Amino acid sequence: MTYTESIKVKVRSQDFVDITSKVEGIVRVSKVKDGLCTLFAIGATSSLIINENEPMLIEDLKKFLEKIASSKGFYHHAANAYSHIRSAIFGNSQIIPIKDGRLMLGTWQSIMVVNFDTRSREREIVVTVVGD
Amino acid sequence: MTYTESIKVKVRSQDFVDITSKVEGIVRVSKVKDGLCTLFAIGATSSLIINENEPMLIEDLKKFLEKIASSKGFYHHAANAYSHIRSAIFGNSQIIPIKDGRLMLGTWQSIMVVNFDTRSREREIVVTVVGD
Amino acid sequence: MTYTESIKVKVRSQDFVDITSKVEGIVRVSKVKDGLCTLFAIGATSSLIINENEPMLIEDLKKFLEKIASSKGFYHHAANAYSHIRSAIFGNSQIIPIKDGRLMLGTWQSIMVVNFDTRSREREIVVTVVGD
Repeated sequence: MTYTESIKVKVRSQDFVDITSKVEGIVRVSKVKDGLCTLFAIGATSSLIINENEPMLIEDLKKFLEKIASSKGFYHHAANAYSHIRSAIFGNSQIIPIKDGRLMLGTWQSIMVVNFDTRSREREIVVTVVGD
Repeated sequence: MTYTESIKVKVRSQDFVDITSKVEGIVRVSKVKDGLCTLFAIGATSSLIINENEPMLIEDLKKFLEKIASSKGFYHHAANAYSHIRSAIFGNSQIIPIKDGRLMLGTWQSIMVVNFDTRSREREIVVTVVGD
Repeated sequence: MTYTESIKVKVRSQDFVDITSKVEGIVRVSKVKDGLCTLFAIGATSSLIINENEPMLIEDLKKFLEKIASSKGFYHHAANAYSHIRSAIFGNSQIIPIKDGRLMLGTWQSIMVVNFDTRSREREIVVTVVGD
């Protein structure tokens, strides 16, 4: 069984938006009890991160990115080169196992969409649920 | 067909533990001949890395991480902010194709669990095998 | 349904080779209309990146890697330690959803194989298509 649904969220530049409950809702609708939930962020300047959704940690992650791929650095590509580099580091896809109809996430694991582009954008995440 | 089994391993802070043979054992039990093996590390301070299990290289990886996300840096989040950042860089999941009942890993590709937290922890990895 | 096929490409050291159309061809042959396309790069010094295939951006990505994991740095492992570190950062696998027989990639998302080793190598990417 394969069930697919998209999530669309408006995300400000460099912001993290938690979509865990939206993804859980899609898994429920799919009626898959045991299987896998895969997520794919459409767009070469966005990423999906599974980590703790805690404001101070998000600040630390932003500072870390500013240090290794600075928004003020010199790049050959257009104005959003750093957005692409950040997206490449964290990647566009994630897979989470499903057991008894629930995502097997740890206590502090939330699914977050990040928009690394230089401006606010609506981001699309394709959620595909496979299993029995 | 979907077959799921968890691996639990005690891992010291910043250590890498090779679970390749454990994963191969689960693939054998699943009886899947052609398909995919997906792995997911539960916990926001651990990661799964597929690379060469060679002690000097592991040292290099640790030094690299200490350079870009130092354990001694200043962070806003609690004491293990660097653990979360390191986990976000390497990610929590991996997918490996299966052919004739075997993982299609390269000669130097081993599956390793890393515990980036500040203390020893038992880490759980969910192995899901899908295919025919 | 599971369909598997390998792509082999010769890639120079540190180069990026676009395999999007080759992967699209495999999805067509598989006849899968709705499902998932997973990719796995065999080898501990190669990676798969989904991002914009634009020469200036590729230069920026190479410079970024040279900065954080320098080819001239001191390492304990053999001469290609930086190749392994770069491969670990970007990872070996990707998953892309398929809808109406087509990869759901964004406008600027291309699938690229990177050879981080110190010399030209033929790289193998296993493409597995699952779905209905």
